[in-house]
Amino acid sequence: MRPRVAILGTGLIGGSLGMAIRANHAASAVIGWDCDVATGAMALERGAADQLADSAEEAVSNAEVVFLAPPIEVIIPLLRAIEPALPSTTVVTDVGSAKERIVFEAHATIGGRFVGGHPMAGHEEFGIAWASPTLFQEAAWVLTPVPHTDPAALDVVARLVESIGARPRVCAPKTHDSLIAFLSHLPHLLAYGLADSAGHGVPDEWTDLAAGSFRDGARVALSDPERWVEILLDNREATVQSLDAFLAWASQAKNALANGDRGRLVDLLRAAHQGRRRFLL
Amino acid sequence: MRPRVAILGTGLIGGSLGMAIRANHAASAVIGWDCDVATGAMALERGAADQLADSAEEAVSNAEVVFLAPPIEVIIPLLRAIEPALPSTTVVTDVGSAKERIVFEAHATIGGRFVGGHPMAGHEEFGIAWASPTLFQEAAWVLTPVPHTDPAALDVVARLVESIGARPRVCAPKTHDSLIAFLSHLPHLLAYGLADSAGHGVPDEWTDLAAGSFRDGARVALSDPERWVEILLDNREATVQSLDAFLAWASQAKNALANGDRGRLVDLLRAAHQGRRRFLL
Repeated sequence: MRPRVAILGTGLIGGSLGMAIRANHAASAVIGWDCDVATGAMALERGAADQLADSAEEAVSNAEVVFLAPPIEVIIPLLRAIEPALPSTTVVTDVGSAKERIVFEAHATIGGRFVGGHPMAGHEEFGIAWASPTLFQEAAWVLTPVPHTDPAALDVVARLVESIGARPRVCAPKTHDSLIAFLSHLPHLLAYGLADSAGHGVPDEWTDLAAGSFRDGARVALSDPERWVEILLDNREATVQSLDAFLAWASQAKNALANGDRGRLVDLLRAAHQGRRRFLL
Repeated sequence: MRPRVAILGTGLIGGSLGMAIRANHAASAVIGWDCDVATGAMALERGAADQLADSAEEAVSNAEVVFLAPPIEVIIPLLRAIEPALPSTTVVTDVGSAKERIVFEAHATIGGRFVGGHPMAGHEEFGIAWASPTLFQEAAWVLTPVPHTDPAALDVVARLVESIGARPRVCAPKTHDSLIAFLSHLPHLLAYGLADSAGHGVPDEWTDLAAGSFRDGARVALSDPERWVEILLDNREATVQSLDAFLAWASQAKNALANGDRGRLVDLLRAAHQGRRRFLL
């Protein structure tokens, strides 16, 4: 009963997914396709697919489950392009980092057999070269059904996700977008901001003083800026809200620090510390 | 010609230092002392000292080099306490995270044989339990002489630091404080702010969605808040300046995002990304 899977976009996420599905024998076949021929070839070479298709339409024409794994702004255009070639019972899911718009537009395009998805795993460098069959091991994989999502389609995707060692977690698209603003989109913005500040504040001859807190705090500023602009714009409202929450804290901390208000600063850092301790990582 | 070394404060930094000195046979003896008896005992057990002294005064009474490694606000009071027991030629250095005030006050206390120091390595958890003989391997170790620092004292400390595998880097206290504001104090503030924001924005049942960007971005918010308040207050002016630089970037990014200004957002993230690429870690 293992499905025939197509993966459109075989970069970091699609490539890792193909490797994981194959390593776990979770599909009867994995058909890969990427608009970039070299990426597709490397995906095949790295074991991310059993075979490559010449086109997205060909890739999905016999698939029972389709994963849309291109850059976020390409997901809906790609879905529209393959729609005429999709068998009528094929389940489609995606891996986009923001869900409300995509789920709305995907349902408008192919109805209840679309299941929004977002694996909580990644890497600061994109591309098939960084793909790994263990990327999703123990990772949460959020699925975002809406009232008219087909429960059987949700079930198919959840079982596939589980079979590669990830933890399916179900919530509404809007809930996802709010949570992920705090857990991914805000951290990325802060990392870019830290990188910009230190980039200007530290002359070349002193960059070697950077250690753990800077390395980790600014790590994801190594991510591709263009890709991240599209993700942030796709979750604009929730990301601005999370940034506002951060800025409110930062302005209080700045005032307490500037005024030498030890008691207030201890309160602020203690509350933040307790917030961090709620996360088991 | 290996010196006799005393380490006052045998927690994460002092303990790691003792282990590294002993592992590299960089001293003829390492005498440890900590105001907390259990910490001292564990330091001895973990190989961070050859022997323990019953008091700070006893620890330094035969030492040629003294490392002051207690929490930052204790460094100067401890130096004043041991000053009467210090042999007249003993070199004293410290490991505090901010240097201008400490160097000024230390020189006022014992003159040119004090050499300010700050190893660029640490851990989000403090304490001897987290100490490691390799903590300073390849790490920069900033030394901050001033015009009246004895060059021979600087040389003694630099050679010791080098002999445990760290990289001595010399600059003025004020320069250190400005650089470290961007590379350590700002990253800590951002981590606490991120932890506070996500702590409020993410309900208990969804904390498991946190992944790499949050884990790394908020890692150092696991650090002890009281310790960090003292460090931040000790480098108040430079830290406020680095936070202002960050807030200026963040407010531009927020406006671009809120207005959906893709071009401006790309410019901001690209510049930040280039800033990050200057750091080779």
